[in-house]
Amino acid sequence: MAANAEDGVVPLLNPILAKENEDHLYHFGIKRTTVDLPKTFGDVRFVCCGGSPARLTLYAEKFAKDLGLEVGKNLSQTDRYVLYKTGPVLWISHGIGAASLSIMLVETIKLLHYANAKNVTFIRLGTSGGLGVPPGTVVISNGAVNGEVQEFHIQYIRGKKVLRPAIFDEQLWNDLYNLGKELNMPVATGKTMCADDFYEGQSRLDGAFCDYTEKDKFDFLNELHSKGVRNIEMEATCFSAMTHRAGIKAAIVCTTILDRMKGDQVQVEHSDYLDYEMRPYNLVSEYIKKQTGLGNK
Amino acid sequence: MAANAEDGVVPLLNPILAKENEDHLYHFGIKRTTVDLPKTFGDVRFVCCGGSPARLTLYAEKFAKDLGLEVGKNLSQTDRYVLYKTGPVLWISHGIGAASLSIMLVETIKLLHYANAKNVTFIRLGTSGGLGVPPGTVVISNGAVNGEVQEFHIQYIRGKKVLRPAIFDEQLWNDLYNLGKELNMPVATGKTMCADDFYEGQSRLDGAFCDYTEKDKFDFLNELHSKGVRNIEMEATCFSAMTHRAGIKAAIVCTTILDRMKGDQVQVEHSDYLDYEMRPYNLVSEYIKKQTGLGNK
Repeated sequence: MAANAEDGVVPLLNPILAKENEDHLYHFGIKRTTVDLPKTFGDVRFVCCGGSPARLTLYAEKFAKDLGLEVGKNLSQTDRYVLYKTGPVLWISHGIGAASLSIMLVETIKLLHYANAKNVTFIRLGTSGGLGVPPGTVVISNGAVNGEVQEFHIQYIRGKKVLRPAIFDEQLWNDLYNLGKELNMPVATGKTMCADDFYEGQSRLDGAFCDYTEKDKFDFLNELHSKGVRNIEMEATCFSAMTHRAGIKAAIVCTTILDRMKGDQVQVEHSDYLDYEMRPYNLVSEYIKKQTGLGNK
Repeated sequence: MAANAEDGVVPLLNPILAKENEDHLYHFGIKRTTVDLPKTFGDVRFVCCGGSPARLTLYAEKFAKDLGLEVGKNLSQTDRYVLYKTGPVLWISHGIGAASLSIMLVETIKLLHYANAKNVTFIRLGTSGGLGVPPGTVVISNGAVNGEVQEFHIQYIRGKKVLRPAIFDEQLWNDLYNLGKELNMPVATGKTMCADDFYEGQSRLDGAFCDYTEKDKFDFLNELHSKGVRNIEMEATCFSAMTHRAGIKAAIVCTTILDRMKGDQVQVEHSDYLDYEMRPYNLVSEYIKKQTGLGNK
């Protein structure tokens, strides 16, 4: 089944659910029939997401303030995710890792489908470990590899391994990269490795377990670098594959908070961290303003 | 390298990190040298964890109140996890899924190792979908299977798939089961399936994507049931494998909030939900009281 790109509405690629009238978006605590979803979410054009609820709240509040919009209250009724709406932009946290992210993506896609939202772009704004780029570099992903260094998101469905192509929208990452250059931001493009844990999965030497040597670690990081990987986080293959499968344009914009070629521990000064953390926001908010005309006098 | 079981201290199975003096437990925001870890955490004997920060906070507060202990403030300095201490019990949230859990486990194991904590038991208290058991049943896991229905946690380390045996402590799950029976609680033992997502990974028909039929779904759920699986959640193989690898006794006690043989949507009444959600706490807190003598007059 192909994504329904004709009218631009976020598609529901589930013929069984398509016959139902009610749906409980369990992890947002939102029921389809008890909220007027088209009225509340029909105008959404961007979904901005990231792991940390506090950071996403900060971004939502800053965007509202910058543009004179209302941020309103957290629209998620559970403590699993936060969900803020500022005009045509949703700000949603997704927790750590592909599993947590996948729930947020499924329920957001269903929410926007029911809302009849059209031509929506999803952008993940995150932190990551850099590979051969200085801390503070904003990496715009042009591809994503999994723990086996293959460009797929791995699912297990009814006992079988299923590989979903992890593909980003080329126009979108090019546009974001060029805008970053225009704004004199320290941007780079490269592949992003999606790990399933922070320690052994990222070849760190500082976990509770370590069966490999420092040489093994650098051999692997050098292999990644030679294949075009410029940063490591924990969501990229899932994010790119699920949005691609739904025909939704998507990008990942991550700041790097250390260079893994130089260490494993995150030791950035707090003031630098606050600066680095805002860089994906600064780039993406400018992009949204250009696309929507918001903030024009 | 075997777990250091001789003196009961939580082991650090990382010879490289063992040579370092400093360690930044990044996702708790705790540095080894700036907190007196033995003084603060040396008396810990139980780590109780679960996905939801609000639920773990509730459990910590209730345990403190029940036993006349101080709950104190959240000791985690980040918004990724909450961490409360009530006497010898830590209450820590781990978010959704194995990736998020793995970080919490690694940093908790390191924390307790540095604290010189001895003979610590880890228990996950969660919610789950039941398989052929009524909602509200408290399932005590006697095994865990991954998305390929194998009793392993899957890691990817330096590009290679590594399988870690997912094994629980038999004495512990037996003791918890027998205590549940004594307390007239609706307990069951069975294997727990650990899925990497909530929808397709659990054979649900109500996700944003669905390429299989209702018959396919039930064929798979029946296969799981015939193999002894009684509930599905998103952390069991990681939790059992990582604790087993470290030589830490561990158990999972999950309430079921629906019977997947009868549906996919969670539609339990709020008052029932609140009741079901407390059942793992009620069982585990009784177990801890018996083991520690806490709460004895």
